[in-house]
Amino acid sequence: MSHDEFVFDHDRHKRIGLSEAVLCEGKSSSQVEHVIDLGVSRSEPLLLTRLSLSAFEALPPKCRDVMDFDEISRTAIIGRHPSSTGPARIAIVSAGSSDLPVVREASRTLEFHGQQSDIIVDVGVAGLWRILERQDQLHRYPAVIVVAGMDGALFSVVGGLVAGVVIAVPTATGYGTAHAGTTALHSALASCAPGIVAVNVGNGYGAACAALRVLRQSQDPTG
Amino acid sequence: MSHDEFVFDHDRHKRIGLSEAVLCEGKSSSQVEHVIDLGVSRSEPLLLTRLSLSAFEALPPKCRDVMDFDEISRTAIIGRHPSSTGPARIAIVSAGSSDLPVVREASRTLEFHGQQSDIIVDVGVAGLWRILERQDQLHRYPAVIVVAGMDGALFSVVGGLVAGVVIAVPTATGYGTAHAGTTALHSALASCAPGIVAVNVGNGYGAACAALRVLRQSQDPTG
Amino acid sequence: MSHDEFVFDHDRHKRIGLSEAVLCEGKSSSQVEHVIDLGVSRSEPLLLTRLSLSAFEALPPKCRDVMDFDEISRTAIIGRHPSSTGPARIAIVSAGSSDLPVVREASRTLEFHGQQSDIIVDVGVAGLWRILERQDQLHRYPAVIVVAGMDGALFSVVGGLVAGVVIAVPTATGYGTAHAGTTALHSALASCAPGIVAVNVGNGYGAACAALRVLRQSQDPTG
Amino acid sequence: MSHDEFVFDHDRHKRIGLSEAVLCEGKSSSQVEHVIDLGVSRSEPLLLTRLSLSAFEALPPKCRDVMDFDEISRTAIIGRHPSSTGPARIAIVSAGSSDLPVVREASRTLEFHGQQSDIIVDVGVAGLWRILERQDQLHRYPAVIVVAGMDGALFSVVGGLVAGVVIAVPTATGYGTAHAGTTALHSALASCAPGIVAVNVGNGYGAACAALRVLRQSQDPTG
Amino acid sequence: MSHDEFVFDHDRHKRIGLSEAVLCEGKSSSQVEHVIDLGVSRSEPLLLTRLSLSAFEALPPKCRDVMDFDEISRTAIIGRHPSSTGPARIAIVSAGSSDLPVVREASRTLEFHGQQSDIIVDVGVAGLWRILERQDQLHRYPAVIVVAGMDGALFSVVGGLVAGVVIAVPTATGYGTAHAGTTALHSALASCAPGIVAVNVGNGYGAACAALRVLRQSQDPTG
Amino acid sequence: MSHDEFVFDHDRHKRIGLSEAVLCEGKSSSQVEHVIDLGVSRSEPLLLTRLSLSAFEALPPKCRDVMDFDEISRTAIIGRHPSSTGPARIAIVSAGSSDLPVVREASRTLEFHGQQSDIIVDVGVAGLWRILERQDQLHRYPAVIVVAGMDGALFSVVGGLVAGVVIAVPTATGYGTAHAGTTALHSALASCAPGIVAVNVGNGYGAACAALRVLRQSQDPTG
Amino acid sequence: MSHDEFVFDHDRHKRIGLSEAVLCEGKSSSQVEHVIDLGVSRSEPLLLTRLSLSAFEALPPKCRDVMDFDEISRTAIIGRHPSSTGPARIAIVSAGSSDLPVVREASRTLEFHGQQSDIIVDVGVAGLWRILERQDQLHRYPAVIVVAGMDGALFSVVGGLVAGVVIAVPTATGYGTAHAGTTALHSALASCAPGIVAVNVGNGYGAACAALRVLRQSQDPTG
Amino acid sequence: MSHDEFVFDHDRHKRIGLSEAVLCEGKSSSQVEHVIDLGVSRSEPLLLTRLSLSAFEALPPKCRDVMDFDEISRTAIIGRHPSSTGPARIAIVSAGSSDLPVVREASRTLEFHGQQSDIIVDVGVAGLWRILERQDQLHRYPAVIVVAGMDGALFSVVGGLVAGVVIAVPTATGYGTAHAGTTALHSALASCAPGIVAVNVGNGYGAACAALRVLRQSQDPTG
Repeated sequence: MSHDEFVFDHDRHKRIGLSEAVLCEGKSSSQVEHVIDLGVSRSEPLLLTRLSLSAFEALPPKCRDVMDFDEISRTAIIGRHPSSTGPARIAIVSAGSSDLPVVREASRTLEFHGQQSDIIVDVGVAGLWRILERQDQLHRYPAVIVVAGMDGALFSVVGGLVAGVVIAVPTATGYGTAHAGTTALHSALASCAPGIVAVNVGNGYGAACAALRVLRQSQDPTG
Repeated sequence: MSHDEFVFDHDRHKRIGLSEAVLCEGKSSSQVEHVIDLGVSRSEPLLLTRLSLSAFEALPPKCRDVMDFDEISRTAIIGRHPSSTGPARIAIVSAGSSDLPVVREASRTLEFHGQQSDIIVDVGVAGLWRILERQDQLHRYPAVIVVAGMDGALFSVVGGLVAGVVIAVPTATGYGTAHAGTTALHSALASCAPGIVAVNVGNGYGAACAALRVLRQSQDPTG
Repeated sequence: MSHDEFVFDHDRHKRIGLSEAVLCEGKSSSQVEHVIDLGVSRSEPLLLTRLSLSAFEALPPKCRDVMDFDEISRTAIIGRHPSSTGPARIAIVSAGSSDLPVVREASRTLEFHGQQSDIIVDVGVAGLWRILERQDQLHRYPAVIVVAGMDGALFSVVGGLVAGVVIAVPTATGYGTAHAGTTALHSALASCAPGIVAVNVGNGYGAACAALRVLRQSQDPTG
Repeated sequence: MSHDEFVFDHDRHKRIGLSEAVLCEGKSSSQVEHVIDLGVSRSEPLLLTRLSLSAFEALPPKCRDVMDFDEISRTAIIGRHPSSTGPARIAIVSAGSSDLPVVREASRTLEFHGQQSDIIVDVGVAGLWRILERQDQLHRYPAVIVVAGMDGALFSVVGGLVAGVVIAVPTATGYGTAHAGTTALHSALASCAPGIVAVNVGNGYGAACAALRVLRQSQDPTG
Repeated sequence: MSHDEFVFDHDRHKRIGLSEAVLCEGKSSSQVEHVIDLGVSRSEPLLLTRLSLSAFEALPPKCRDVMDFDEISRTAIIGRHPSSTGPARIAIVSAGSSDLPVVREASRTLEFHGQQSDIIVDVGVAGLWRILERQDQLHRYPAVIVVAGMDGALFSVVGGLVAGVVIAVPTATGYGTAHAGTTALHSALASCAPGIVAVNVGNGYGAACAALRVLRQSQDPTG
Repeated sequence: MSHDEFVFDHDRHKRIGLSEAVLCEGKSSSQVEHVIDLGVSRSEPLLLTRLSLSAFEALPPKCRDVMDFDEISRTAIIGRHPSSTGPARIAIVSAGSSDLPVVREASRTLEFHGQQSDIIVDVGVAGLWRILERQDQLHRYPAVIVVAGMDGALFSVVGGLVAGVVIAVPTATGYGTAHAGTTALHSALASCAPGIVAVNVGNGYGAACAALRVLRQSQDPTG
Repeated sequence: MSHDEFVFDHDRHKRIGLSEAVLCEGKSSSQVEHVIDLGVSRSEPLLLTRLSLSAFEALPPKCRDVMDFDEISRTAIIGRHPSSTGPARIAIVSAGSSDLPVVREASRTLEFHGQQSDIIVDVGVAGLWRILERQDQLHRYPAVIVVAGMDGALFSVVGGLVAGVVIAVPTATGYGTAHAGTTALHSALASCAPGIVAVNVGNGYGAACAALRVLRQSQDPTG
Repeated sequence: MSHDEFVFDHDRHKRIGLSEAVLCEGKSSSQVEHVIDLGVSRSEPLLLTRLSLSAFEALPPKCRDVMDFDEISRTAIIGRHPSSTGPARIAIVSAGSSDLPVVREASRTLEFHGQQSDIIVDVGVAGLWRILERQDQLHRYPAVIVVAGMDGALFSVVGGLVAGVVIAVPTATGYGTAHAGTTALHSALASCAPGIVAVNVGNGYGAACAALRVLRQSQDPTG
């Protein structure tokens, strides 16, 4: 079967300021290979997400060689956008170290688009002093990505402390009634703190894209 | 039809230290009336829960006259156990003032069993300073009942601050993904703070009974 | 019972740039009255949400007289922040006219905080030309609030067309598998368009707060 | 144990115009082998669905040799109905290339019954231009099968553009709130576009059967 | 507030062969009145669905006078398409008489578009002879709409008996595990009979629209 | 650790007429081995359920040698009750051949208790003639166990045809909205046919026990 | 509209030993009236279920006069089958007095079919002595109907004590995680006691029908 | 990447009387190794939970050597608190032997904190005599941890028999409607016995922590 089925959304970056990313989960190895070939031939940056280590290793060397692959976040970067300068304008905060893969999917997506981020992990509310001592720092960012599983209590606590855009990313950390991230998601959406927004469970990529949409506004007030 | 169907669990207080309570929701007016008659004839204290104002008003005067009825908590007390002395040994903390009916169902159940409680409401985590300034006070109670709806973030925050038994009572406060208390319940159970226990949504009565089981132990270390 | 239970989060506006709002659903008439008294005595703006017409009418005249009440959105405004000048920087887009109460909860929340908004309703994707002819206009706003029930397809379509922050507000419009807004919510979160964020079902207030967090960044790039 | 347990619905094709198909998932290798033997002995065309590569390879050569097996769609065809001539009367449209296995289950089922189909993949609404440039083409088919996961927004967009029968096939593409195809299914059923019909998640076979029921009517207006 | 929010999808009938219909559930009385005014001024047929008797009676006489209102199906017709001649080409079959409102929503939608239908109710599978004695009759229709609640077993039985397009409409008939139509819906989608398609719970309107899409093909084989 | 944790319910057969059975799923190999040792030493018949082939093979020879193991049903019998004579008094009917493991769990449980059963498989309602031609035969049994997945339509059809006790066993056959047996279960419980009873998904063992309770009554009318 | 839509399943009693019953919930008053007219003209016994007091009172006197109506169970009996003699062969046991409406729906259905039942209510397991002192009595019945809401623990306790057929009827008694009877239902089906069978939530009618199927076997061992 | 992400909640034991425990599930091998290094360097006791045998074996010898590892409960203890003397003050009761891993997670957590426990397994209510003969013994403990899956009926039975704090731990034992512990959880929360509290499914660790909170009160009545 030919691979003509893959159609790049070629003007996405121009249209909405975000480059095309390819979700590799659910694609066969030959489909992923074909996407990479297409991407390389376009000479435009390309981000691959949910590319597991075993899926990466199943690719031919010519594909692996053009990629910057990260095992923890399961992301691969082919080319990238120019880096912005100055201090990081986005913080990524997480409740526990088990949330690291999602934290890094977000930071890698930002990096791909040329933005650095400051990462603060393991500040869950069971030891509340850990987030409280970061309060002043967190106040400085236009956008804060908060990554948490289990009860998602960190979303509300951060939402009540900072004035920036708070983007909640629920994760599947926890078991039983954590329901693979659903409880954290529902907590984010039903939060008692005003103006928190949420993305899908484990969607570090989407949180980063939302943060990029925010940054774009703060950099260019004419919209 | 005769009312022989109601069978008091007559030795419950002797067996487990808690008097029988009657859930009125779902019972017809004549069933509730019959229960009150039985209760009065037994000369033992009786607690009625989920007795709405309209259900109370539908009862004949002879029933209403023997009751101490409270509209907010929908409880009625007929007789009561002797009051313990000294400072309250149980605190009831709530996230918002909409949780008041459940707070009072708990405090009235405690009162019925002879225990006073200290009530601290409207200390939700969106304004974190409100609970933090209570931290020292909360440390003094053997048991703290925490009542919260929406995201239930207060459960984890209190659980990380105090050493007493923390009994979470989720409430139906909130809408959408608050799912009528289910999200708060799941948050309590999936909490990142260790050793939090939960009762059913809106079950102020059950939380009070659990607290009474705790007090019984702290008063009588031989069990 | 005294009303001491209500504790204003008095420094919220200074802390996170959003004034306190009171969710009236689930509060008794006397609780709402007490909140209004407190609010008036503080001489700070106060927003009431989910205040139904019948709940409004149950308030004493002294309360009703100090409010700007809107029946459709069930909001009441007491005092308000100074209006910003210039063209509206936020658009509110909805799929159908049944979504109007949520649209107006958002626009009223913005208005309370001094921001105007442009409202574009009834542009559901079943007649795709309606949203396509607005594409250029929508490109101009730092934030676009999209309000939709049923399948929530409008979220993805707008998310693929504009570069601003896209805040999805699912509504309960529809029946059966629309599941009172849950399907639209899940569609927003699982969207094929990158960087869409969501708030709770029917949460026009929260969407407006999130948009205000965005605007704050674009107005003040130092964060 | 004897294999007498398998009972062909031998007059199905005569009765409803569709040949018997066997769902192999959940059957043991010896059951599948037995079905093939029965099918061959009947001299009638037989379609096997959900036959994984490993299940295929576990069959004895005498079985494998009589089959036309396709790994991607997990289908095997034994004999087939005469092909109709003329241009394809059914289009199969999909949102992304991860949906390909379902697309091919549908196209193979049609092929088995003698119908060709036109396949258009990777036209998800995040890049709306991709489906819009196909609008005229899609208008020509009596039936359009639309295959999509995640938010299922493509169903409503196509349903609003074409006059033919629109058969939605949700797929498990996506994660988190995509809920393994449930969100796409609910979107299809709660669609704002009129007259869309749906089949089970991943049921390319069923969608093809429904399309064949449609074609049968358009070919033979007497019913 | 002005009513400019309602935007007719004015070329829908030309585009997809179905006239615009307005879902009245969730709209205020003044919104419905405004829609009717718009519809009348356009001189095109208009269908209102989910218009309850009380909502109908709340309309001003000038609105009620231009409508053909039916209480059982909660539909109102303003103008209508020319009737087709010849015998009915669509059958509507239902499991029980409680399903009648949905049956009539379908038949009224067909009638509005100029198509008659044959209605066969109360043929649930608990008394299987009732549907079996209709088998020959049912074989004659290009499309059969099957309306059933509870277990939805009728969908599979009809799907196994007839060759036409079988459109399942689950209803909320039943209680407990009937789950307000969800079980019947899931049964339709997971049916053991091939090629059954489903619409939303209670969506008689949608089933009729799907049937009209089918008829359009059988009348005009060029698509 | 000692194995003292296993406590046989030693008078179960005398008390309720059913011998103890051990659910092996979730038990470690050494736990199963210990149960078998205990069982053999008691000299009473013992039934093991959900013992997978790999779990069986992990047992030491001394255990495997005393068992009658069946791979398909994952059951092992150690000793058994005396067989009753005469024709089988229980029928087991299934919709498809994928349901065979559950069918056999039921028949093996009956056999263990000394009862034969007649097995009729692959009579799903998509080919309705298959069950109709068995109608007279099915009328003869005091109890009919019906095993079906997917839509569970067979339960209602059989329930409407026979006068015996109809015990529905839902199975996980099917995918998507079959929801691993939940849809078939809900269909059984919401059936339009009167007096159908259900057991847990896949619980062939439980269905057989229920049938044994029925037989016990028909054999001994004094109860 | 004519009432031709109601089709009696006229040979049901001959076929399966149970008379037709009509579920009135969801039917209009004129539909119920029509059913009664039909029933009376047939001169066969007829049972109406889920006929609320207000629905009963809305019927014309000619209908009310031919019925034996019971408000608690919401049943009406028109004619009835001859009563069997001898002691009751079915027991109905319930956990609490709130379950009474379901208990009586079962007892009235039995009475309609000529069978008496013994009723034992308010024997929930929180006071375990209540059911234990009934153990010998319960052993005497071929079938025991157990009615319980909340946790449904009574099902397992009875199932472990008696040898007769145990038919669990979950009820909606309780709140929160009782989930309107779903938890009790799931407990019945997942019971640790062998051979318990269940009917739908609140389905006293269905439980009685199942018990009648059992009795039929014990009275007539030839099936 | 550096491991600076792990931040011990270093004053937890002083603050709430419980030492930090690390949930290993979801952490990479290098993260677990890093935690152990940190823990050893702090010279404070550390508990690891959900450390599977394979995860344990993947650790370097220097880590394995400092641990007391238990395969069944998947716990590892590094250092421990001084043991209290006297008889065990906590009982752990379970319904079946499949619940053993959770029972041991609880007993190991207690042991780590210096508390012994008495373990009573396999006393499910299907053989009610097993728990009844333990009634007097169970009355002696300030806290009883009850571990049960399936229907969770044991929670209510124990709750009605003893006066101590009853902590329900649902487990995933069972299949189908046991729903991986959800049914047992819901039963615990909706229990008919007063004052039962629950922890998350399978959360033996949390139950032990709750019991420790209780013991702390009974040992030190000043709170």
